[in-house]
Amino acid sequence: MIKIAILGYGVVGTGVAAVLERNRELITQNAGHEIHVKYILDIRDFPDSPRKVLFVAHFDEILNDPEVKIVVEVIGGTGAALDYTRKSLNAGKSVISSNKELVAEFGNELMNIAAEKGVNYLFEASVGGAIPIIRPLVQCMTANIISEIYGILNGTTNYILTSMEKNNAKYSAALLEAQKKGYAESDPTADVEGHDTCRKICILSSIAFGKHIHPKYIQTQGIKEIEIADMHMTKSLGYRIKLLGRSRLTGDKILVFVAPHLVSDHSVLSDIDDVMNAAVIRGNASGDIVLCGAGAGKLPTASAVVADIIDAVRHMHARRWIGWSEGGKENLSDHKLLESAWYVRTDAPKEKVEREFGSVIFAPFNQHPSAEIAFITSVINEKKLDYLLSRDITAMSKFRILGDY
Amino acid sequence: MIKIAILGYGVVGTGVAAVLERNRELITQNAGHEIHVKYILDIRDFPDSPRKVLFVAHFDEILNDPEVKIVVEVIGGTGAALDYTRKSLNAGKSVISSNKELVAEFGNELMNIAAEKGVNYLFEASVGGAIPIIRPLVQCMTANIISEIYGILNGTTNYILTSMEKNNAKYSAALLEAQKKGYAESDPTADVEGHDTCRKICILSSIAFGKHIHPKYIQTQGIKEIEIADMHMTKSLGYRIKLLGRSRLTGDKILVFVAPHLVSDHSVLSDIDDVMNAAVIRGNASGDIVLCGAGAGKLPTASAVVADIIDAVRHMHARRWIGWSEGGKENLSDHKLLESAWYVRTDAPKEKVEREFGSVIFAPFNQHPSAEIAFITSVINEKKLDYLLSRDITAMSKFRILGDY
Repeated sequence: MIKIAILGYGVVGTGVAAVLERNRELITQNAGHEIHVKYILDIRDFPDSPRKVLFVAHFDEILNDPEVKIVVEVIGGTGAALDYTRKSLNAGKSVISSNKELVAEFGNELMNIAAEKGVNYLFEASVGGAIPIIRPLVQCMTANIISEIYGILNGTTNYILTSMEKNNAKYSAALLEAQKKGYAESDPTADVEGHDTCRKICILSSIAFGKHIHPKYIQTQGIKEIEIADMHMTKSLGYRIKLLGRSRLTGDKILVFVAPHLVSDHSVLSDIDDVMNAAVIRGNASGDIVLCGAGAGKLPTASAVVADIIDAVRHMHARRWIGWSEGGKENLSDHKLLESAWYVRTDAPKEKVEREFGSVIFAPFNQHPSAEIAFITSVINEKKLDYLLSRDITAMSKFRILGDY
Repeated sequence: MIKIAILGYGVVGTGVAAVLERNRELITQNAGHEIHVKYILDIRDFPDSPRKVLFVAHFDEILNDPEVKIVVEVIGGTGAALDYTRKSLNAGKSVISSNKELVAEFGNELMNIAAEKGVNYLFEASVGGAIPIIRPLVQCMTANIISEIYGILNGTTNYILTSMEKNNAKYSAALLEAQKKGYAESDPTADVEGHDTCRKICILSSIAFGKHIHPKYIQTQGIKEIEIADMHMTKSLGYRIKLLGRSRLTGDKILVFVAPHLVSDHSVLSDIDDVMNAAVIRGNASGDIVLCGAGAGKLPTASAVVADIIDAVRHMHARRWIGWSEGGKENLSDHKLLESAWYVRTDAPKEKVEREFGSVIFAPFNQHPSAEIAFITSVINEKKLDYLLSRDITAMSKFRILGDY
């Protein structure tokens, strides 16, 4: 029997406890040992919980119990989570995490401690919830030079965008609905401003390209400026708007950014609705691999956490290979130089647009009460785009169009 | 340095040699050892190949060389491939295979030999080419009770179906085009009659449900009967036709079959075009996971084979967990009892259809020169469908509609 502790009894923590109970027999069989939750740590009290006897108030009780071999950190953030993870690893306990913020900011340091102590620090659940992404990247794509990774990596924003489209709703109304349904936090900043997506693309990039990519260096644009008019225009052009985290190798540098994009109706990404996520991994032998599924939620996230627990149990005395080296701003290249076709919404007359941009594709949608139009440019970088727009074309919005340029 | 032998120098064999050369540095780093191809076995001569010095004419040369630790079997079929795999495993060599026929028919026996001898028999490339499917199933879904697996698992038939739609082409013309482009064999039977899909869904089912499921017991319908009229009718109903391998748990039995299906335009599967493949795995915690990518081809298949080689090198003295137990016809349930909505094309008048089937959805498409119509039934099993059709409604075609019933 392997004894574990769960730090944090929120959505993911309760999910982990629930999955361990619900699928106990199968999990015992797959892990080769029964997995027993010995402690749950939370600052809140749960006097009515059937698991109340497991609760402890002090982390030290867990840290000092040599029986606890695996610590599940599902607290989130970089405060207590960082402190407890460091201490657990240093005490020779493996740590399983769903905490993208912690992995994106301190993953390198924590994996170094794990390596020193001969234990595992695993975080499959930190990107894409239930979707297998990190293991496929680390184990199945090993014969490939990865040139690009991108995807829909945040369920909340994808839910809001889907809802804006479906219900012809404004951003603010769609956000409110998402909050009511529990798909958005009361403070939705981390999601809607793209920080959550940023952390996840940083983790994937660090794994794929081998250098630590810190979120603080990454240009991140969220979804708050997207208007219903954009939904109509893009639809009429055969596209949908999705918030993407993107990362690619450009020479010996890495280009990483987060921004809303237009994706073609014919792409798999266009069918990723609501809280679903999808990641595309491009290898030089494999071509494009697309991995889709529930990107968040109690049981899906717990599914990935428990798979990591099982893996850690199976490899109690062996280290799972994962890691990357230090990296800094010098490893990153300027996203403004990345060329693509662009979608622009403006109130400038078509003639002026054609004079500045040459041949463009105008959106057929024209039922908007205003004189607004939208168009798709030829393939140019953002500096060129901004220069052309500066010549007296006011852009209400401008988004990249995803494609192979 | 680890020395390996490649058995079979066809599309996949040349791909494996090419990927090992092209990404040598990365592969050495990921494997922890340089991987050196010591022998290539093929019955054909390649006097002009830059690799000609590696060719040997007799398998025994490979078998009796203790330096060869890993044998890559990319011959295909169950003749020499079976013999060489048995002998290699018995000689304590790990075997990597892309041979779905061999794994589907003899996987259980071969994994038992591998277990006995403490070596690995790995076959990620046997299903879905470059797409990570087997590892995610075995490692990432371990916390889940799997209830269902299905997918587009054959590139050739998917290419033909896509081409029929795009080019308004008959099956025979689309097949000819696929053959010209090298996407279909000169004898396309295994693909177009669904046997290849059948082998792959058998492998996935055996892994997911733990019992060996032999292709010979599986009802398999191919794509030869699909007509252009069906393409038009299904399109007008908001669906596309895809050949699916399907498998699900029904009580303590397993339901497995292969047949063309209508999939909704809004599903991810509807955007899987040409030679792309996709597999859906449904877990009781994860929900639906969809894995997509190039399902065949030289480099994509080699990408998966080489990842297995790397894994075998990393685990030279440890066994990767994978396997299933014996299984037989008694583990299978009758697909005729599986309920679904159905698409039916007929020349019967609408009134007669409504009299027999009650409320149905008729296809809006009506430009076909004949008096044919198509409709979607309510949710019934195939026995009920056949009974209703037997009451004087001639079905030109009938296909299941994929959905959660």
